[in-house]
Amino acid sequence: MRRPDQQTTTRPPSDPAPGAGSGADATAETPPDKAGEQGHPAGDLTTEAVLAPYLRGQAADFLRSLRLHHEHSSPAESGGHDAAAATRALRRAARRISGSLHTFRAALDPHWADQLRAELAWLSGVLAREHAYAGRLTRLVEALHQLSGPALPAARGARAAGEAAASDAQGRAALGVGAARAGALLERRLTLARTRSHSAALQALGSSRFHAVADAVALLASDVPLAPGTTGRTAEALLEPAERAEQRLLAAVAALPPADSEPYNEAQDAAWHQARLLLRLHRYAHEVVLGAAAPALASCGHALDVHRDAVEAAAAAAAAARTPRIAPATAYALGVLHADQRHEVEAARAVFRETWPYATALTAP
Amino acid sequence: MRRPDQQTTTRPPSDPAPGAGSGADATAETPPDKAGEQGHPAGDLTTEAVLAPYLRGQAADFLRSLRLHHEHSSPAESGGHDAAAATRALRRAARRISGSLHTFRAALDPHWADQLRAELAWLSGVLAREHAYAGRLTRLVEALHQLSGPALPAARGARAAGEAAASDAQGRAALGVGAARAGALLERRLTLARTRSHSAALQALGSSRFHAVADAVALLASDVPLAPGTTGRTAEALLEPAERAEQRLLAAVAALPPADSEPYNEAQDAAWHQARLLLRLHRYAHEVVLGAAAPALASCGHALDVHRDAVEAAAAAAAAARTPRIAPATAYALGVLHADQRHEVEAARAVFRETWPYATALTAP
Repeated sequence: MRRPDQQTTTRPPSDPAPGAGSGADATAETPPDKAGEQGHPAGDLTTEAVLAPYLRGQAADFLRSLRLHHEHSSPAESGGHDAAAATRALRRAARRISGSLHTFRAALDPHWADQLRAELAWLSGVLAREHAYAGRLTRLVEALHQLSGPALPAARGARAAGEAAASDAQGRAALGVGAARAGALLERRLTLARTRSHSAALQALGSSRFHAVADAVALLASDVPLAPGTTGRTAEALLEPAERAEQRLLAAVAALPPADSEPYNEAQDAAWHQARLLLRLHRYAHEVVLGAAAPALASCGHALDVHRDAVEAAAAAAAAARTPRIAPATAYALGVLHADQRHEVEAARAVFRETWPYATALTAP
Repeated sequence: MRRPDQQTTTRPPSDPAPGAGSGADATAETPPDKAGEQGHPAGDLTTEAVLAPYLRGQAADFLRSLRLHHEHSSPAESGGHDAAAATRALRRAARRISGSLHTFRAALDPHWADQLRAELAWLSGVLAREHAYAGRLTRLVEALHQLSGPALPAARGARAAGEAAASDAQGRAALGVGAARAGALLERRLTLARTRSHSAALQALGSSRFHAVADAVALLASDVPLAPGTTGRTAEALLEPAERAEQRLLAAVAALPPADSEPYNEAQDAAWHQARLLLRLHRYAHEVVLGAAAPALASCGHALDVHRDAVEAAAAAAAAARTPRIAPATAYALGVLHADQRHEVEAARAVFRETWPYATALTAP
């Protein structure tokens, strides 16, 4: 049985790009994976022997991250490196707790599980936004730089655009004219959204609603409410739900639309986002039952995180292009940027198809 | 020895997409390839036995296409299907004659070869433009339709854009707002350019300069001016130039920049266009020496034609985006379109790398 703090101590100090979502988890999985190679003693897959310690460990992680966050962040500063790392750890534990409450609901007090899961979902959502906006801005500005060429950082503005226009690369020039302004527009929009999310997160962390969640998690760290009767006392109580979680994932992946070259397939995004959530639930159930992450799925999960980020970045570029009274050159650059991000979406889907370890008809036609 | 009219009779009646350039040749190569499988009697690779008949055959094709063109086109109508097919056949023969004059210059009267080649280059250029503009418009409008979705043909205009905006696909909606106007703008610009090129082509075909070219080709159909002395009477007179043409191609392809994901690599376009021209010269030399097209290179050649078309379509979208006083939504759609065509450029380069039959370090890193 690995001690919960193993996860935190083995987490690499390097701070992954903000908004990388559970891409950060993919890194953090590896140590528990190694640590848990021996898995659990066979036949001892009862709720008390496996699920309860896992939940207690995640709850301890949650509370530790919360303490760290309070130490490192103050309403004055907009959350430094340490506060951001603490928030990520907080979200990481919250995701694992609510995922386990979902998958193993039948082995726990269902009413309590549903309530806590809803509250943890609310909390994760509030805490995720700030980093998502920050990551989106980074992704879009970097893409703009690459598209408009290293000779034309968005910051250098009109004069640089003039130089670029002098070059014979028509497309790059036409892009350069607006790339600087598009970058500035995105920076304004996403920085504003990020600041608002930051205040919202601080407000949430000070709310009575949050204190109720923290109290519930504090209770969970000492005592896990099991299902009434003997439900949680048999191995089936964990194995069957874990297998159902895997089956839901396999079904969702098998139902994913086949590869096509059409870049404007937003209609398919939802199915891919759903597969991402089911993959995450399966990974957590795998952690619980085998005491180790499913290593083969780490790269798939990362591809789906990148997919999600590219989808949202493309949408942000399209939304910025609907800003009233922007210059045509700015709109042109945003169009190039949107198409570029939709091609990143395609690329992420291709990576997922290549790295998906199960045998399915997932290869491109 | 295949009779020249074999080529015309075996040419498929189906009219390839205008502006597909020598993509049409790739189709037309197949029959002579089959026809020429027996090749030439070994050791009989002299200019008289091989090059002269080839040039006479292409000259006869040229004159036949010219007659067809005069029959089918009148200054009134802007060149129907038959006139377009005749013009393509005319360009096809002109390319082969001038290519052979270039590769086998030493085996022919050099002064005459240089002069006729320059005039044929001028003629091919004038004749190619109209179909290039038509093909560019088709390519761009089809790409716009695909990008903005079948629900939004550019023709349906603002109301259709409104419907699309109502859809939840943000990117598609943002695109739809401008796709109709962008399509109309491209149609105006490229139709104007096409009409001008058509008049220029008709004017050229009526000019004394063209009649001089036609006379020179008519002479060529009966008598091929060989190099003074015995130069053209040895096998080396054809084999060595043909091998040099192949070596130039191999060197150019080996020097092509490696694959990268950066979509704004206009700086590399020229090297790819050069490879396309050298591939064409090699294919024609192959036709002359072996009496058959190089089948393995047909798909590579087609990929380079598609590459050329996508490069020019992307440039046309970028140029249209610099139209003064266009709406931001129009510029946005043109940006999306430009990025899409640059990704088509990347795709064509990938196809070339996959289909290139020679062993080189051409695979993507």
